[in-house]
Amino acid sequence: MAGNLRMVVSYDGTSYHGFQTQPTKHTIQDKLEAAIYQLTGENIKICSSGRTDAGVHARCQVINFHTASAIPAERWALALNARLPRDIVVIGAEAAPEHFHARRSAKQKTYCYRIRNTRYPDVFARPYELHHYGHLDVPAMSEALSCIEGTFDFSAFCSIRSQKKSHVRTVFQATLETCPIDGQPLISGQTIRIFITGSGFLYQMVRIIVGTVLQIGEGKRSSEDMRTILLSKDRSKAGPTAPSHGLTLWDVEYT
Amino acid sequence: MAGNLRMVVSYDGTSYHGFQTQPTKHTIQDKLEAAIYQLTGENIKICSSGRTDAGVHARCQVINFHTASAIPAERWALALNARLPRDIVVIGAEAAPEHFHARRSAKQKTYCYRIRNTRYPDVFARPYELHHYGHLDVPAMSEALSCIEGTFDFSAFCSIRSQKKSHVRTVFQATLETCPIDGQPLISGQTIRIFITGSGFLYQMVRIIVGTVLQIGEGKRSSEDMRTILLSKDRSKAGPTAPSHGLTLWDVEYT
Repeated sequence: MAGNLRMVVSYDGTSYHGFQTQPTKHTIQDKLEAAIYQLTGENIKICSSGRTDAGVHARCQVINFHTASAIPAERWALALNARLPRDIVVIGAEAAPEHFHARRSAKQKTYCYRIRNTRYPDVFARPYELHHYGHLDVPAMSEALSCIEGTFDFSAFCSIRSQKKSHVRTVFQATLETCPIDGQPLISGQTIRIFITGSGFLYQMVRIIVGTVLQIGEGKRSSEDMRTILLSKDRSKAGPTAPSHGLTLWDVEYT
Repeated sequence: MAGNLRMVVSYDGTSYHGFQTQPTKHTIQDKLEAAIYQLTGENIKICSSGRTDAGVHARCQVINFHTASAIPAERWALALNARLPRDIVVIGAEAAPEHFHARRSAKQKTYCYRIRNTRYPDVFARPYELHHYGHLDVPAMSEALSCIEGTFDFSAFCSIRSQKKSHVRTVFQATLETCPIDGQPLISGQTIRIFITGSGFLYQMVRIIVGTVLQIGEGKRSSEDMRTILLSKDRSKAGPTAPSHGLTLWDVEYT
């Protein structure tokens, strides 16, 4: 199917230097482009909905690229998976309109940050969630998250290495859900999943928001501080950057 | 707490040469004994409920050992976890009666074999489950499993490399449960978890049972064949050995 192809890709980012191509070639983009080259002989630059940092995972990253190959769209996923490492899986492929662009056409993205609030980590989920032992004030964390819903200058929650001209973004929704782990006394506790949906995200924005919300959960700050920090536009007022391995690009939506 | 200590350990077996110590030293037992040595200076041989093969995981493996250390029982788990690789986690430790022996005192063990029956693998669960695309006749698989409940000579489901004198074992329960994966069109399908509880297990017994049940699910054999295979006591009549990475030692029960 020659033309514009749109794909959904999931990956375990543990061992990669992020999504975007690097001289090391050990990125998700490099692996995808190498698999496309193996399959078609085409040297293609793929376009994604946005980069993810080193160690960050994706459940549903969206990419697109133009190909001259005659391979039918529905065959692409299995064909690429056979040529990809086991920690990258294409879970969908379809023909897209000529003008479709994975980044520019995206309307909103959702990230999920997972925290396991138990005495011991779950060895099987450990690469994908932050383990936090000790009480967390979940209602306070939830309240803090609601403070960032809206259109704001998010400079306080943006790495000082950001090179974007404007730090104004819209967060449509910032919520959390808890899931009790019971029936298993040895590993009892709860998992907390923080979901943040926005028009776009600044460099390390979700991880700095989560790092701040965790301080609020620990009682080191109050939930009202969240708005003060946001309005300060000062990175030094916010909390630390939460570790990358707890973060997953959850979904990208288009209209 | 000097005396007999009982611990529950979970591990991701992906990168290990099984539970039991080997000259390579890259086994779960070696890592646990090295952590105990680091913590106490004691050269201890631990005892487990039973070995697990290379690549097999454990949710709740049970071990015991005698120590002269004064460290209180409730401190051991965190102390050892700080000295263990990230894919091995002690999730419980308690004082045990002098006569407690992790293998000899065990009354029954449960293994779980997980199969993901979807078009594409789940990248995050991939190390812990077998991905199987294509229809599986779940009722037939369930029926086949019920045939092995009871006390039998399980030679048909035992590696020919077994050196045990008797292959008679009791399977108390062999069932499966399915869990639909829906709401997510791209990764729809189901997971199938096969649980087998028995008095003891022969070398590769669960994996050979699962390999045979999978052939029944695929329609290559009928569920009635299961009993014929069992009664034949002939390994060559059974199916292939299912891959190790789908298998997890789920639980060990003591009275």
